[in-house]
Amino acid sequence: MNTDPPISNPDKYKVIFENERVRVLEYTDKPGDKTTLHHHPDTVTFTLSAFERKLYSNGQEKVVVKKAHEAGWQPEQDHVGENIGTTDTHTILVELKEPRPTNS
Amino acid sequence: MNTDPPISNPDKYKVIFENERVRVLEYTDKPGDKTTLHHHPDTVTFTLSAFERKLYSNGQEKVVVKKAHEAGWQPEQDHVGENIGTTDTHTILVELKEPRPTNS
Repeated sequence: MNTDPPISNPDKYKVIFENERVRVLEYTDKPGDKTTLHHHPDTVTFTLSAFERKLYSNGQEKVVVKKAHEAGWQPEQDHVGENIGTTDTHTILVELKEPRPTNS
Repeated sequence: MNTDPPISNPDKYKVIFENERVRVLEYTDKPGDKTTLHHHPDTVTFTLSAFERKLYSNGQEKVVVKKAHEAGWQPEQDHVGENIGTTDTHTILVELKEPRPTNS
């Protein structure tokens, strides 16, 4: 099973930029939508809409509530994401291609 | 002279997120605004507004015209930026803190 988001969930994740250091994804979904399991490397997130989501990762659930224009950090992980709110999700993900430095 | 953008041009550059791998800046200005000389590391850009700017770097000038919601790349550089358009600039910059890999 390919767990690269634009491959596993191509209706939601689009690659909008890529070079040797980063890849930038644009994510969109609607209330009630749920992804399949996929993998993210260390990623900077920047929200374009407010949203309320639930992330399922390693047997745990976590609710994420964001406002529009919030920057954040998503450490490397596998997860399923579900839109549990009443608004569409629209967010930008900047994936870091280099491995995390060993001293951090 | 400190050429770190939030220090050199604090009216235009705000730090909105930072950790050990990245720093995220939000940039805003108005038509006619011009920065002082400042430094950027390798940076992912994501526009929140359309704009038209001129960048002055190493004795050269370059016009940059962007639409809203465009992702791009700004390699490490010192420059002065000037809003030469008719709209405010609003853009997000994701700075990479790690040095560029030596094989790229």
